[in-house]
Amino acid sequence: KAASYTDSSDDETSPRDKQQKNSKGNGDFCIKNIKQADFGRREIEIAEQEMPALMALRKRAQGEKPLAGAKVVGCTHITAQTAVLMETLSALGAQCRWAACNIYSTQNEVAAALAEGGFSVFAWKGESEDDFWWCIDRCVNVEGWQPNMILDDGGDLTHWIYKKYPNMFKKIKGIVEESVTGVHRLYQLSKAGKLCVPAMNVNDSVTKQKFDNLYCCRESILDGLKRTTDVMFGGKQVVVCGYGEVGKGCCAALKAMGSIVYVTEIDPICALQACMDGFRLVKLNEVIRQVDIVITCTGNKNVVVREYLDRMKNGCIVCNMGHSNTEIDVASLRTPELTWERVRSQVDHVIWPDGKRIVLLAEGRLLNLSCSTVPTFVLSITATTQALALIELYNAPEGRYKQDVYLLPKKMDEYVASLHLPTFDAHLTELTDEQAKYLGLNKNGPFKPNYYRYENLVWIVFEVVKEIIFECLMPA
Amino acid sequence: KAASYTDSSDDETSPRDKQQKNSKGNGDFCIKNIKQADFGRREIEIAEQEMPALMALRKRAQGEKPLAGAKVVGCTHITAQTAVLMETLSALGAQCRWAACNIYSTQNEVAAALAEGGFSVFAWKGESEDDFWWCIDRCVNVEGWQPNMILDDGGDLTHWIYKKYPNMFKKIKGIVEESVTGVHRLYQLSKAGKLCVPAMNVNDSVTKQKFDNLYCCRESILDGLKRTTDVMFGGKQVVVCGYGEVGKGCCAALKAMGSIVYVTEIDPICALQACMDGFRLVKLNEVIRQVDIVITCTGNKNVVVREYLDRMKNGCIVCNMGHSNTEIDVASLRTPELTWERVRSQVDHVIWPDGKRIVLLAEGRLLNLSCSTVPTFVLSITATTQALALIELYNAPEGRYKQDVYLLPKKMDEYVASLHLPTFDAHLTELTDEQAKYLGLNKNGPFKPNYYRYENLVWIVFEVVKEIIFECLMPA
Amino acid sequence: KAASYTDSSDDETSPRDKQQKNSKGNGDFCIKNIKQADFGRREIEIAEQEMPALMALRKRAQGEKPLAGAKVVGCTHITAQTAVLMETLSALGAQCRWAACNIYSTQNEVAAALAEGGFSVFAWKGESEDDFWWCIDRCVNVEGWQPNMILDDGGDLTHWIYKKYPNMFKKIKGIVEESVTGVHRLYQLSKAGKLCVPAMNVNDSVTKQKFDNLYCCRESILDGLKRTTDVMFGGKQVVVCGYGEVGKGCCAALKAMGSIVYVTEIDPICALQACMDGFRLVKLNEVIRQVDIVITCTGNKNVVVREYLDRMKNGCIVCNMGHSNTEIDVASLRTPELTWERVRSQVDHVIWPDGKRIVLLAEGRLLNLSCSTVPTFVLSITATTQALALIELYNAPEGRYKQDVYLLPKKMDEYVASLHLPTFDAHLTELTDEQAKYLGLNKNGPFKPNYYRYENLVWIVFEVVKEIIFECLMPA
Amino acid sequence: KAASYTDSSDDETSPRDKQQKNSKGNGDFCIKNIKQADFGRREIEIAEQEMPALMALRKRAQGEKPLAGAKVVGCTHITAQTAVLMETLSALGAQCRWAACNIYSTQNEVAAALAEGGFSVFAWKGESEDDFWWCIDRCVNVEGWQPNMILDDGGDLTHWIYKKYPNMFKKIKGIVEESVTGVHRLYQLSKAGKLCVPAMNVNDSVTKQKFDNLYCCRESILDGLKRTTDVMFGGKQVVVCGYGEVGKGCCAALKAMGSIVYVTEIDPICALQACMDGFRLVKLNEVIRQVDIVITCTGNKNVVVREYLDRMKNGCIVCNMGHSNTEIDVASLRTPELTWERVRSQVDHVIWPDGKRIVLLAEGRLLNLSCSTVPTFVLSITATTQALALIELYNAPEGRYKQDVYLLPKKMDEYVASLHLPTFDAHLTELTDEQAKYLGLNKNGPFKPNYYRYENLVWIVFEVVKEIIFECLMPA
Repeated sequence: KAASYTDSSDDETSPRDKQQKNSKGNGDFCIKNIKQADFGRREIEIAEQEMPALMALRKRAQGEKPLAGAKVVGCTHITAQTAVLMETLSALGAQCRWAACNIYSTQNEVAAALAEGGFSVFAWKGESEDDFWWCIDRCVNVEGWQPNMILDDGGDLTHWIYKKYPNMFKKIKGIVEESVTGVHRLYQLSKAGKLCVPAMNVNDSVTKQKFDNLYCCRESILDGLKRTTDVMFGGKQVVVCGYGEVGKGCCAALKAMGSIVYVTEIDPICALQACMDGFRLVKLNEVIRQVDIVITCTGNKNVVVREYLDRMKNGCIVCNMGHSNTEIDVASLRTPELTWERVRSQVDHVIWPDGKRIVLLAEGRLLNLSCSTVPTFVLSITATTQALALIELYNAPEGRYKQDVYLLPKKMDEYVASLHLPTFDAHLTELTDEQAKYLGLNKNGPFKPNYYRYENLVWIVFEVVKEIIFECLMPA
Repeated sequence: KAASYTDSSDDETSPRDKQQKNSKGNGDFCIKNIKQADFGRREIEIAEQEMPALMALRKRAQGEKPLAGAKVVGCTHITAQTAVLMETLSALGAQCRWAACNIYSTQNEVAAALAEGGFSVFAWKGESEDDFWWCIDRCVNVEGWQPNMILDDGGDLTHWIYKKYPNMFKKIKGIVEESVTGVHRLYQLSKAGKLCVPAMNVNDSVTKQKFDNLYCCRESILDGLKRTTDVMFGGKQVVVCGYGEVGKGCCAALKAMGSIVYVTEIDPICALQACMDGFRLVKLNEVIRQVDIVITCTGNKNVVVREYLDRMKNGCIVCNMGHSNTEIDVASLRTPELTWERVRSQVDHVIWPDGKRIVLLAEGRLLNLSCSTVPTFVLSITATTQALALIELYNAPEGRYKQDVYLLPKKMDEYVASLHLPTFDAHLTELTDEQAKYLGLNKNGPFKPNYYRYENLVWIVFEVVKEIIFECLMPA
Repeated sequence: KAASYTDSSDDETSPRDKQQKNSKGNGDFCIKNIKQADFGRREIEIAEQEMPALMALRKRAQGEKPLAGAKVVGCTHITAQTAVLMETLSALGAQCRWAACNIYSTQNEVAAALAEGGFSVFAWKGESEDDFWWCIDRCVNVEGWQPNMILDDGGDLTHWIYKKYPNMFKKIKGIVEESVTGVHRLYQLSKAGKLCVPAMNVNDSVTKQKFDNLYCCRESILDGLKRTTDVMFGGKQVVVCGYGEVGKGCCAALKAMGSIVYVTEIDPICALQACMDGFRLVKLNEVIRQVDIVITCTGNKNVVVREYLDRMKNGCIVCNMGHSNTEIDVASLRTPELTWERVRSQVDHVIWPDGKRIVLLAEGRLLNLSCSTVPTFVLSITATTQALALIELYNAPEGRYKQDVYLLPKKMDEYVASLHLPTFDAHLTELTDEQAKYLGLNKNGPFKPNYYRYENLVWIVFEVVKEIIFECLMPA
Repeated sequence: KAASYTDSSDDETSPRDKQQKNSKGNGDFCIKNIKQADFGRREIEIAEQEMPALMALRKRAQGEKPLAGAKVVGCTHITAQTAVLMETLSALGAQCRWAACNIYSTQNEVAAALAEGGFSVFAWKGESEDDFWWCIDRCVNVEGWQPNMILDDGGDLTHWIYKKYPNMFKKIKGIVEESVTGVHRLYQLSKAGKLCVPAMNVNDSVTKQKFDNLYCCRESILDGLKRTTDVMFGGKQVVVCGYGEVGKGCCAALKAMGSIVYVTEIDPICALQACMDGFRLVKLNEVIRQVDIVITCTGNKNVVVREYLDRMKNGCIVCNMGHSNTEIDVASLRTPELTWERVRSQVDHVIWPDGKRIVLLAEGRLLNLSCSTVPTFVLSITATTQALALIELYNAPEGRYKQDVYLLPKKMDEYVASLHLPTFDAHLTELTDEQAKYLGLNKNGPFKPNYYRYENLVWIVFEVVKEIIFECLMPA
């Protein structure tokens, strides 16, 4: 009997206890079910259509192989989009071994397709903590394999190698890290003088910041709410906590669909923007009794506390689009007088003694990761940046990068952006010589200086400046 | 082992061959699996939250039972929303027997919850043609049951009774019909002098026309496309064929999400509206090579023919939001040189010999029925209208309605609308006596005359006028 | 010294007391100052650019002159747009004599340009009541002139002829009337059996209804508020009274510019639309203390009464976009304790004893007539309809039109719309034979039946039906 | 005879040749006509309503006078908003003498009101070059007056003092400069080591950058186009060159009003944003033949050159919203074969030999300065920042500021923003102690680090860094 797309109930055996081989007899992987490979391949093909820049890189790689000889060990979400990235790295000449950076986020059928395609993947949906580290270890520590590049998302892989196989860093040319958390860890290592290879901070590339947050959230807030609750947006009263890029995206989308949106803010400048954009700026307690939906986008903790949850009206939907999973004080709802009822996947009704129900999504975790798909196109931007960062670090002449954390040059950001323009059949204007001179720019960019992105990472400026001064003052 | 939410693979037995009883020992129903009742109950509870008007009717019915003695036989989609309607009718005093009006649309777990709740439901997802009529027959023809009201969606139930049990009409007080098709059939019967009971045309109530089309499509086009393809809307080029209410809703939503939208029209007035609303008005062939998504909303046939499909670019998504399922000439794609690949439920890749893929949704059938949920709130408006139509016909003094097709009085439309305003915490302004006099209106409405809705049903005016003339000329 | 554009202070003489001649020696007109003709000509040329349909009619008229022999007497606003209409009628073969339908609305320089161009115009800005009728009389009653067509806006010209020169109607082939008021008068005449020529009701053409209200108000509310008050829209709280077409236009524009908009309504159906469109539906007293701008669009009287004006906050702007000038109870502000201060043209500060100021625009009269320009393109639609109505009535074979009030056939509406599409470089799709048959339509339209427009004119249906019945019942 | 609001034609005498005194007998000013003071006072009162922050500063100044002893010499546009600023400085304790920074921008009636109020104002509309410097000199060089603060817009005043009265700088505590040009000059002085007092760069405050550009342009593009051309926006095809903050504001407004908007860009990142926001990214030559309106927002030169102007269609409107007045190559239109016709103030028809007309606004200068009003509220933000900068420089302890150019601290920016929130009845949320600790922020801000604003001022970072390095490397 063929494996069905959604069905895996027939098989409760742990993947670690199974012996599976792909159609070519290769068994160097550990996944849920190799039979799902066909389903996964289709998902990958769909994703390819929306990842034009990686496909363009593959085409260019037909001649030169900029990653020939690279041995990349990776630890990211295992999704169709990651698969497109991995297959691109492979086309560029790299060998890859891969684990999941999250115990729930693996698409089993995609992992199967990768395994069938010859990738050494170690990941499945619903790993235990122990499985998680076991998978990572299997990517790193296998005979005859010495990785020379790290692609990490969250820093767990990097951490593991630091802890277990520090000697490995002798051969490693660099780390590419995507997440806020992972980048933070790297800077700490760097400050402590313990970073022993160069690292690329992909998280703070301007394309990721601008596109991941504003545009991605604009679409995924609608999708996440619809898939979980089928709520109609027209006429609904919604309060959005926080008016940064994420909040701006959520507010714009909901307003466009006919919701009435209120905003809370702590920063007067963002607050004034909310006003000018046509949103009533309120304190949460002013509207908490009347709103139909509460969305947190602050990156702060305890924004929606029990006191507010107690005062919400029956049927109010509560969800989190921010960075941390502490924005909603979910712990405060785990009390005996409240009944939890799981009504759908990712949807709980929390029921008060008087019968009032709150609809809590994803148990307060990130809605757009749990309950909606992130548009492939947006992920394409990040994945392309990762690929370029790997190429850059792998090919950089000795000395260009020290044992420190780097941002991709602005020109590279612009290159990533330009690789995505053909998708929109968009035609860029070129400066004339005269205009370039007038503006003091190179005709091919960069059009903004490297410091552009420092809006989101200002403390780095301090580091840079301090370092320069330091170096200057201590020439010998 | 408990039945799981999605799993029914364990059981290929036809429901007609099973013996099931609910927890009270009642077996007068035929559904997929009574064990799914709990799952269905939760769906119904979720739906109740968005159907405030029916819940309000239930509250009022605690004293008087306006449908006491009513025996309603129904044939509609069996969904959570229908369940809320049925349980409301029951609370108002009616007895109900129910079948599905579509062989695919039944939510099995909802049917189970209804059966568990004591309703005689005959419906499951994936009925055969024979099952379909068998189910209808089981609603009508059972010993000790003589229906006196019909609630129909599509006219099949009405047709069956006409054909098989014409004598039943002696006891039937009226028919309430929701669909375009069913209403059309009723008017034909009426013209032919064969309509033997009064019928209420719910399809052409102004609330249904305005809200079902514009607002419903505004939300469901996004939802339908996202759930099937995860496509990112930002920057996509879309052509929408037809700029009626449905097209207007689709265009507004996509423009708001950052798509670039083109419109085709045949009517210069709608065309001028599209222009003024900011859409380029084109012929399909002008943009067919460049667009990423094609959406039909015309009600016409063969709008997207093979010639256009041949010229679409790789990855183009094609779907239908109009009334008929003939807008896309799907038949023309069933040729040997094209390969069909089912990539997800409701999603086919049609592959040209050169590798080009078209993404066809729902095989050209209605996207919003197949691939998205219709907002419960919008269905609430229709369901409330149906309930009020049943009450009106059931309680009308003899002679008020003849053997003809009627529209609900405008005042009733306004009443349905006003029952939905509390959802939005909306406060209606009342006319002062002086203002009412100035405007020549009654303070309690109707605020627009009955003919208001004739925008969408002009031929009725002709009928009415013709009839009046006819009656006048032939007084004896 | 040449006449300057705005300067007319040098000349307080009444035009009736002046002897002026144009450059060809013709003196059959009465206007402010013939020297302003050049300025007026430029305004007319600007208007021509936005009136493509009339320009197209002129081109077609190079061969046939459908109005050859027509002697049109007109009474409308004398603006650049009217001038384009008059010069088109002339190009189509008509002779014209013209007066103003409003004592304030004449653009003196346009009147000068028309006089210079040979038209017999009798109008200036700031006519007295006596001047007003004198001008009309001079258009009608001049030796050697027997008008055979009437183009009226408000019915004053028609009224004057009825009263003074009833015999003239023997030669008159028809009346074209644009305004609500004028149309109302015609229906009354018709009911009373006193209408002695056919009349075309241009006011209720679907193009005028849809485009004049929604699209025109969308632009003119912003323009009117800016020109009078320079108010910033972003973040402003606005209440719009009434959510018909005018209210919808105002709300959409202000929401788009970042205002927070509240709506009041009496009709539950419009109220529900406002909710679904994302506006809080309130009673005026709920928000009157907090709003920055109050806009009336109801067509009702005493919507904003003294009680509300007393409670507005300092600096609140109050204006009227509705049909009547009674929506704001301005009379209630003419009391001794309130001080009026004219701060700009059309802008009064009304000052309360405590220093609070209300900013009242146009003394409560229509904002878009007084304080903004109506887009020429929208006026083009109406002017084209007037021209076509004149052509139709003038050329209709005897018997086609009786002594009654008519709407232009739907097909004519569609024709007007189609004449405006080239402006947008818009390309209409044509039905195939097969599609036309499927829809039961003629390939060239009409695409909607004639009764379509009755949404806005329902009472006519009643009249028609009543009449039919009446005639039927009283055959002898 | 009283002076009328618009009329000044009676008086061609140069203000310099007139002897005027205000009602208190003071004659230390030079303006057009002191009799217009009442009209100006009304404009100032209107402006006060939209400048809440300055009014709040005045209230606080009732006790302490932070500018007591300050002698401010100013050179800015003389408008109602400037008057509110000047009267606020006066209320804070300062003495002022003022000239205009532009020969055309003075509102004569406002200058009159200021003179009547006792301010020494030297400015009128239509100054000659010689007048311009004479006025500035009269502000600086008068017996018994030694300025100690400079408020400049463009740097001309600063330049004049440098050139003519360099010794004055001994007593001057600081310069506050608003414009890009002026700031540039100051940095050059600073680099050259010639800046002899501290200077505040107000131009690059985040509030000015974000609010002046995006929000201001969103409103003024519509207003500017309407007042000059009365063009209808619905359905118009528009190309916007440049998608920075100004371009984003223009695009958003026009899209909202129903225009079809195309964008040109040179920077791939801004280009990708335009795509995601729903605009077709094109090269100018792709759409130049079809668009109705061309708007430049690039800050670049020769964006619209003769070649493009030649290919525009008849009636195309061309205007500039960018920073420089060289974006449109107006000089290329001054050729013999083209005829210029001034049709209204600020509106020229440029006519090609074949009769084609281009509608050129403001001769290619900034549209929003010439043809629309800038919302007072936006100016309020800048004016408040100027006032705070003066207070800061005037009261700073010795040594806090050196002879260099400074940005206002971020906290001051946030303070300016917070002073404007009450206008919107906006309620800011306060961090709890726990949250502040979690985010590592002070509860009272700043909420973003000082370098935040460097997005718009990156070159300064380079300068700073270079300087540091320079200093470090050359310690002796």
